[in-house]
Amino acid sequence: MNTGQTWTVGVTGATGYAGGEVCRLLAGHPNLRLAGVHANSSAGRRLGELQPHLLPFAEMTVQPSDAASLAGYDVVVLALPHGESAAIAAQLPAETLVIDCGADHRLQDPTAWGRWYGGEHAGSWPYGLPELPGLREQLTGARRIAVPGCYPTSVTLAMAPALAAGLVEPEVVVVAASGTSGAGKSAKPHLLGSEVMGNVSAYGVGGVHRHTPEMIQNLSQAAGSSVSVSFTPTLVPMSRGILATCSAKLQPGVDGPIDTAAARAAYAKAYADEPFVHLLPEGQWPTTAQVLGANTVALQIAVDPDAGRLVVVAAVDNLTKGTGGAALQCANLALGLPETTGLPLVGVAP
Amino acid sequence: MNTGQTWTVGVTGATGYAGGEVCRLLAGHPNLRLAGVHANSSAGRRLGELQPHLLPFAEMTVQPSDAASLAGYDVVVLALPHGESAAIAAQLPAETLVIDCGADHRLQDPTAWGRWYGGEHAGSWPYGLPELPGLREQLTGARRIAVPGCYPTSVTLAMAPALAAGLVEPEVVVVAASGTSGAGKSAKPHLLGSEVMGNVSAYGVGGVHRHTPEMIQNLSQAAGSSVSVSFTPTLVPMSRGILATCSAKLQPGVDGPIDTAAARAAYAKAYADEPFVHLLPEGQWPTTAQVLGANTVALQIAVDPDAGRLVVVAAVDNLTKGTGGAALQCANLALGLPETTGLPLVGVAP
Amino acid sequence: MNTGQTWTVGVTGATGYAGGEVCRLLAGHPNLRLAGVHANSSAGRRLGELQPHLLPFAEMTVQPSDAASLAGYDVVVLALPHGESAAIAAQLPAETLVIDCGADHRLQDPTAWGRWYGGEHAGSWPYGLPELPGLREQLTGARRIAVPGCYPTSVTLAMAPALAAGLVEPEVVVVAASGTSGAGKSAKPHLLGSEVMGNVSAYGVGGVHRHTPEMIQNLSQAAGSSVSVSFTPTLVPMSRGILATCSAKLQPGVDGPIDTAAARAAYAKAYADEPFVHLLPEGQWPTTAQVLGANTVALQIAVDPDAGRLVVVAAVDNLTKGTGGAALQCANLALGLPETTGLPLVGVAP
Amino acid sequence: MNTGQTWTVGVTGATGYAGGEVCRLLAGHPNLRLAGVHANSSAGRRLGELQPHLLPFAEMTVQPSDAASLAGYDVVVLALPHGESAAIAAQLPAETLVIDCGADHRLQDPTAWGRWYGGEHAGSWPYGLPELPGLREQLTGARRIAVPGCYPTSVTLAMAPALAAGLVEPEVVVVAASGTSGAGKSAKPHLLGSEVMGNVSAYGVGGVHRHTPEMIQNLSQAAGSSVSVSFTPTLVPMSRGILATCSAKLQPGVDGPIDTAAARAAYAKAYADEPFVHLLPEGQWPTTAQVLGANTVALQIAVDPDAGRLVVVAAVDNLTKGTGGAALQCANLALGLPETTGLPLVGVAP
Repeated sequence: MNTGQTWTVGVTGATGYAGGEVCRLLAGHPNLRLAGVHANSSAGRRLGELQPHLLPFAEMTVQPSDAASLAGYDVVVLALPHGESAAIAAQLPAETLVIDCGADHRLQDPTAWGRWYGGEHAGSWPYGLPELPGLREQLTGARRIAVPGCYPTSVTLAMAPALAAGLVEPEVVVVAASGTSGAGKSAKPHLLGSEVMGNVSAYGVGGVHRHTPEMIQNLSQAAGSSVSVSFTPTLVPMSRGILATCSAKLQPGVDGPIDTAAARAAYAKAYADEPFVHLLPEGQWPTTAQVLGANTVALQIAVDPDAGRLVVVAAVDNLTKGTGGAALQCANLALGLPETTGLPLVGVAP
Repeated sequence: MNTGQTWTVGVTGATGYAGGEVCRLLAGHPNLRLAGVHANSSAGRRLGELQPHLLPFAEMTVQPSDAASLAGYDVVVLALPHGESAAIAAQLPAETLVIDCGADHRLQDPTAWGRWYGGEHAGSWPYGLPELPGLREQLTGARRIAVPGCYPTSVTLAMAPALAAGLVEPEVVVVAASGTSGAGKSAKPHLLGSEVMGNVSAYGVGGVHRHTPEMIQNLSQAAGSSVSVSFTPTLVPMSRGILATCSAKLQPGVDGPIDTAAARAAYAKAYADEPFVHLLPEGQWPTTAQVLGANTVALQIAVDPDAGRLVVVAAVDNLTKGTGGAALQCANLALGLPETTGLPLVGVAP
Repeated sequence: MNTGQTWTVGVTGATGYAGGEVCRLLAGHPNLRLAGVHANSSAGRRLGELQPHLLPFAEMTVQPSDAASLAGYDVVVLALPHGESAAIAAQLPAETLVIDCGADHRLQDPTAWGRWYGGEHAGSWPYGLPELPGLREQLTGARRIAVPGCYPTSVTLAMAPALAAGLVEPEVVVVAASGTSGAGKSAKPHLLGSEVMGNVSAYGVGGVHRHTPEMIQNLSQAAGSSVSVSFTPTLVPMSRGILATCSAKLQPGVDGPIDTAAARAAYAKAYADEPFVHLLPEGQWPTTAQVLGANTVALQIAVDPDAGRLVVVAAVDNLTKGTGGAALQCANLALGLPETTGLPLVGVAP
Repeated sequence: MNTGQTWTVGVTGATGYAGGEVCRLLAGHPNLRLAGVHANSSAGRRLGELQPHLLPFAEMTVQPSDAASLAGYDVVVLALPHGESAAIAAQLPAETLVIDCGADHRLQDPTAWGRWYGGEHAGSWPYGLPELPGLREQLTGARRIAVPGCYPTSVTLAMAPALAAGLVEPEVVVVAASGTSGAGKSAKPHLLGSEVMGNVSAYGVGGVHRHTPEMIQNLSQAAGSSVSVSFTPTLVPMSRGILATCSAKLQPGVDGPIDTAAARAAYAKAYADEPFVHLLPEGQWPTTAQVLGANTVALQIAVDPDAGRLVVVAAVDNLTKGTGGAALQCANLALGLPETTGLPLVGVAP
């Protein structure tokens, strides 16, 4: 039951894609009210000029992005490049719910932070993936939350149950296709429409993408021991969506080879009570279109007996369940609202 | 204020694009509950197999599409090919709210019906474009409603104010770009992804598209006299959206040539109280992305003094404001709910 | 018969889209040899890094773009922003064949130049549209050639025959859909893939696009008197291609109303001997895919008797027949080669 | 040196995507002349109606597809569904060069044929991938040639050098993104533009795609022992192109761990003299756009020391090097022409 209480929300980085998605979802949330939009580079401009789709908020004026300007809200969402969130967050009141959509507070290991991002580690916050064992409890009532990266969300949800159940060896291979919005809104030649339409390309090959340590952290926790991840991201000609194809070698199995039915059972159990994770019926494979704009994850698995591998495919919208929707899902938990409040379950298709 | 009353809705043609959009929007409507999905060709199948994005409704079974099967709902939405709606509608109880997303009840003139569609004219119903003068009153409390065509929605809203204010001559030229979902879900070779991606084509050129008489009907009513429409639809590589570029020769003007400011004033007045129609600030031009999945219309106008024409550009989502959203907007009016109930105002962008 | 003589070609602006297209086509030309690539901003870099598709030229080093560096070639192609070509061209030897893909030498009227581009008019060169009466003769043996703009190419070829034959009134309405490569390779936020995919937008509405005076110039020459053009360009989600939908009011006709057959006859006659212009059979409408990467124009016409207008649709590839292909077609004429030498006639579809 | 000799070519399945591509490339081939187009389902129709981009061949009439109709050509290209080629080929004269773009003659192992395709095995022909050791010799002067599948072409060229050099373990994981033209031209709902645009999906997951045994055959020959392949194809929103991301666990290495430089050396050596295979400079990753419409393969490799894997990415155009271009490359070899005759090396980008 919804009590009707409302909280004010300030979003910084509101002129980018992640921040814009948070604003879009706030327009449909009954208890959270977008009270201010912030972004240093375009402070003073109409939001409608920068985010034409946010028609109900078009007349809001973009304000500066600093701790003083952000101090008065019940909830602050930080949608900033890594390295910028931590500095602002440190100055916000302890009772403010601060949700960081960036990378600053995701990694627990300072050494990993140093290797992948450089500079000083800001420490880790409760990790906003309630579908993992134990995390929902940490997020309930929390006042500092780190939203997972978009790729790690898809890969973690795809592989954690198999690793936790000991179905596969701890060497995971991931090839993920991502829409271009994952690369952000700053104008670079290789992200021009003329370059990306009709084109697929790989990037960050060979284990150099910064989301890799986050996947390793999550999957190692699920497995209870160290897991390696070979991660290759690819850029595909669409704005939104991630399709992660993940696989690992099957363990021998206690009662003979693991088949698809046995593997399905582990996933069905892991996600039985999850409102946002859908293990599709056998024979139906995930599409990014079916989750576009929705906070849902579509999953499917198959055992390949010839190659001896479990293959899991997960589809998420990188901006919704991959960022902005996850932020509001966590806000719901932190504020004591039903977890699904205000979050779309239906993708915008076709 | 929302009383919390709910009505049951049956949607037939639920496995197509228009029907699917009605279902998608019902998932977010607080007073309308999707109680049954119907479609003759796939009766007996899981809805999730045919509409993978409708995850909350995935386990519903498709039922037959006939009057008997549709008789028990408070609201019936018909999303059927033209010629099929009228036969079913005739057998539904008078107190059922019947909303026809097809063409059967849009045209008032039996001769026009005969020329463009052939066969007997089923008569006309209140026309579901509340933004036109007088129509909101007709729709309030109505039990039979004809949802406008997607192209006519964009073109009518684009040109009616100029014609009503006598700014332009009654000869309108329209070139509209449409996403492929407007052509429906039946598999034809020229609609394959391989054919439409990276490709723009014209079709129905020379005044032969069936939406033409509907535009003429609407614009002639707005002008108070007969209007001609030269309409060329084009197919562009996207799933959703219509961008209609409309123009007409400027009238001489009483106090000298009509300029952009004078024309803007007429539009600002016409749509001052409309929640779904947005005349953009000067200098900003409509994009279909800004209204994707939303029930909004984005409009902009310009006077070209050299060519002596008024140019108006309108963007709508053909499936939302162009069909399914319009259906629910009309349902809200018919049932006495606030007109905007449950309808998204924010597009899914980028 | 091909004598086998070869000429060296230097291309400046070779790292952009127009220059890249010239290089691509040179790879298939038997008599023209790409001998140097130039561009100020990236001088010193490998071409392969900047134009990954030009694999046979990948190891060429980009050289500076100035008259001294360009002086030694038989043929120089200038693919530069307007205002830059004229300065360089003025310093090149008179016997060098100089082909300007930019706007500097297209307009004959200095007043028009001043109004639309500002600054001093560099004068006009033979205009590279051999399909217009009299131009092929001017281009044969020429040493200075102005390549038409991409939009004017499509619109001029679409409407010139009707105006020349007196079929229509001299008031032309054009709405053209263009792929994003027409906007060039410099990175601007509204041209990002995330923004343009799934999106159609209008720009330069109300007669402010700089290609307008070039259309007026060409069509007025065809008509033998002043023609007005209402031109609205739109941006569609594809890299290449223009589909121009053009229309004008039909003249009364000497022997009664002009019908489609009569109009077709005028076009068939105008383009009977043109190797690159294809009037499609009745019932088939142009698509940009059918001319992708080819130097061809696909045309179709229809008379709309209700609206009293002739509608003509033309498809070109903005980079091929719209720029780089036209440049080589003109080079062939200037050098005495068969006009079609080395130019693809088949589009890359699907 | 080109002697100027010409051969006549008949293409059957000319109305499909593979057959259309063969025709497109024949338009630019100096020694091969398209003399007849065949296809049972549309015999009697104008080719231009079915393949609008083949403008120079538009007036050819489609003829029936049977051995009698195909008997008179020097070269016959079969672009037919599997199972249809073998029956026709068996009736063609031994001296006719028959090139099968379908699957009927690719697999050497009758058991594999039976398992994956069913029915009787037609036997295997010289396999049209001249870049593999020994095959160029088999193809020179051959009169029966089996063109490889599009996925196997990309995966084989990506992984064969590493397996041959013993750099990796014989367990290959492949995730490949393919444009929709790979699925052919028959109209199926899930291939509609509305479904595929803005969407990525997986299919044939778990080792069930019919190209798997062909990859296993090729890679096992390269390795000299049995190789397993875990293959997941995905469908991405573009018409043409395959990007195959392939990886395998690194062998320990004789002189310590294998690094990227050592792996690059193996590939550089394997493809040193290949005109169509391009190992890109370090730091540049393949894109499908750079090979669109060209007969080239772009390759890049990286060693991931953390995950202990070699990752290889290959881009090909599924219709060109993946089918129609490979057919003509093989025809060149079979007829004694220079291998690159008439084949584009430059992709159509952007």
